[in-house]
Amino acid sequence: MLSPDIISDRVAEAVASISYPAQPAGLYEPIAYTLESGGKRLRPQLTLAVCSALGKDIDIAMNAALGVEVFHNFTLLHDDVMDAADMRRGRPTVQIRWNDNSAILSGDAMLTMATSYIAKTPAAVMPEAMKLFNRTAMEVYEGQQYDMDFENRTDVTVGQYMEMIRLKTSVLIGCACRLGAVVAEAPDDVAQAFYDYGVNLGLAFQLRDDWLDTYGDPLVFGKQIGGDIINAKKTWLLITAISECRTELLDILAEDLEPQERINQVRAVYDRLNLKDRCHDLIVRYADMAVRSLENISLGNDARDYFVNLAERSIDRNY
Amino acid sequence: MLSPDIISDRVAEAVASISYPAQPAGLYEPIAYTLESGGKRLRPQLTLAVCSALGKDIDIAMNAALGVEVFHNFTLLHDDVMDAADMRRGRPTVQIRWNDNSAILSGDAMLTMATSYIAKTPAAVMPEAMKLFNRTAMEVYEGQQYDMDFENRTDVTVGQYMEMIRLKTSVLIGCACRLGAVVAEAPDDVAQAFYDYGVNLGLAFQLRDDWLDTYGDPLVFGKQIGGDIINAKKTWLLITAISECRTELLDILAEDLEPQERINQVRAVYDRLNLKDRCHDLIVRYADMAVRSLENISLGNDARDYFVNLAERSIDRNY
Repeated sequence: MLSPDIISDRVAEAVASISYPAQPAGLYEPIAYTLESGGKRLRPQLTLAVCSALGKDIDIAMNAALGVEVFHNFTLLHDDVMDAADMRRGRPTVQIRWNDNSAILSGDAMLTMATSYIAKTPAAVMPEAMKLFNRTAMEVYEGQQYDMDFENRTDVTVGQYMEMIRLKTSVLIGCACRLGAVVAEAPDDVAQAFYDYGVNLGLAFQLRDDWLDTYGDPLVFGKQIGGDIINAKKTWLLITAISECRTELLDILAEDLEPQERINQVRAVYDRLNLKDRCHDLIVRYADMAVRSLENISLGNDARDYFVNLAERSIDRNY
Repeated sequence: MLSPDIISDRVAEAVASISYPAQPAGLYEPIAYTLESGGKRLRPQLTLAVCSALGKDIDIAMNAALGVEVFHNFTLLHDDVMDAADMRRGRPTVQIRWNDNSAILSGDAMLTMATSYIAKTPAAVMPEAMKLFNRTAMEVYEGQQYDMDFENRTDVTVGQYMEMIRLKTSVLIGCACRLGAVVAEAPDDVAQAFYDYGVNLGLAFQLRDDWLDTYGDPLVFGKQIGGDIINAKKTWLLITAISECRTELLDILAEDLEPQERINQVRAVYDRLNLKDRCHDLIVRYADMAVRSLENISLGNDARDYFVNLAERSIDRNY
């Protein structure tokens, strides 16, 4: 298997090499702006890594990898419109730099761009890759809809929350992994094992995101700590706390408190319920399930190390 | 070839038979609402008609037809958000009935739905159908971007306007026709002839839309006459008038006039330039080019009549 550095470099090169028509600039400049803004590039790296782990040349996986990455950035672009977000990755969002209509239309074009990359996967596997990609995309929209629905509810269960983040975040990471197996023409049980790895890794990642927003180191995390509490965002922490201390939590959230005071009061409940450790334990469990998804798959040591390390990093990453 | 009535009925049945998951309702109800609201269903009928004209069973074209129709309705849904439109086909738009975020997210899901239908075209032609569909989609976004760009410009040429409506409206009608030929596995020159037919028909349709907005019969047209003039929308009529009577037109548009007074003053310029007849002549020319696109293609009389009649109706349709 290729080294993680080479995989990471190849993804960066491929994204940087995407070329756009010059006109109409109002359509293509926001797309270039969105894609060049970086991020971890986790998904395309996973696609290439799975393909390489299965002994195939990563060139056959590059279009699938780009398709998933462009799709992911499309969802962020439209999510930012829906959330009226001002900043993304340290820069103004597209609707601030341009306007809402640009963000909507350029996002639409990114979805079609992503689909076009999937259409360029090797002919023998393209129909399967396309089917997986489209099914995953619908699940991501369903997850986003549930996330929006949850904003106005106080009766969301932890089970419903886990299903929401599975749809909104995890299935795309599963899809990224599975696409690497599909282009490598791996048997179905191998493809499914990598899909399960990705989904569990995605759940661990999202829970760690929730955890970091409350318990992260502000110097390392790069965002203000406590944003989720201030916005009463339905995270695993808040949903668990509401389900176990409903009246107390809803009273705090209903009060007109200064932001820091609200953070302090909500965190006091979290602390009493030991949610910092309980959330961490859950992250460990999903990272562990990710690793175990691959235990019956024959892999070289370097490949297994890659996937195990990634799962372990999801447990204690700080940004 | 099947009769126009049968083709129209089969499209209506197929659209009515689309089923949606029950949950999340906030995602799927706006999609059902959008697709059930009707419209002429011109595009899917064309896909089936071309396939039938080429002697094939229309069942092989149904997924392509649905893909194009769902895509068309997706563009209307997102266009309505971008235009902040209140009404569509006599009913409140999705962002009025639900909200902007629903319209954005449900539109995204409709684009993926449309792509999924294209992915279900017969395996032998699916890659070609998908490539055509994705390329067309990008052109439609480019057209929408140019349309938005034109709002703030007074120097748009007639040539630029024609290219904008070719992209925004006509290529999808060309694509609908060509997909019928692609699924019928017609040779490339036949597919291209039907594409050209659709593009020219689309240009005639759009110019007739512009014409009707100013010269239509208010009792038949179903919309207020003069809306484009009130909104200073860059149509063929306005762009031609600005290019020929620039100062006069821009003075009228800059004045703070009552709507009916603005309509009267702009129409007076149109009348002096004989734009009513000149626009009509141009529509006749595109309808004629549509018919001539098919002149070297071998077709049964009933099939040729179908496409000729459709082109002729585009000249004098009143709604």
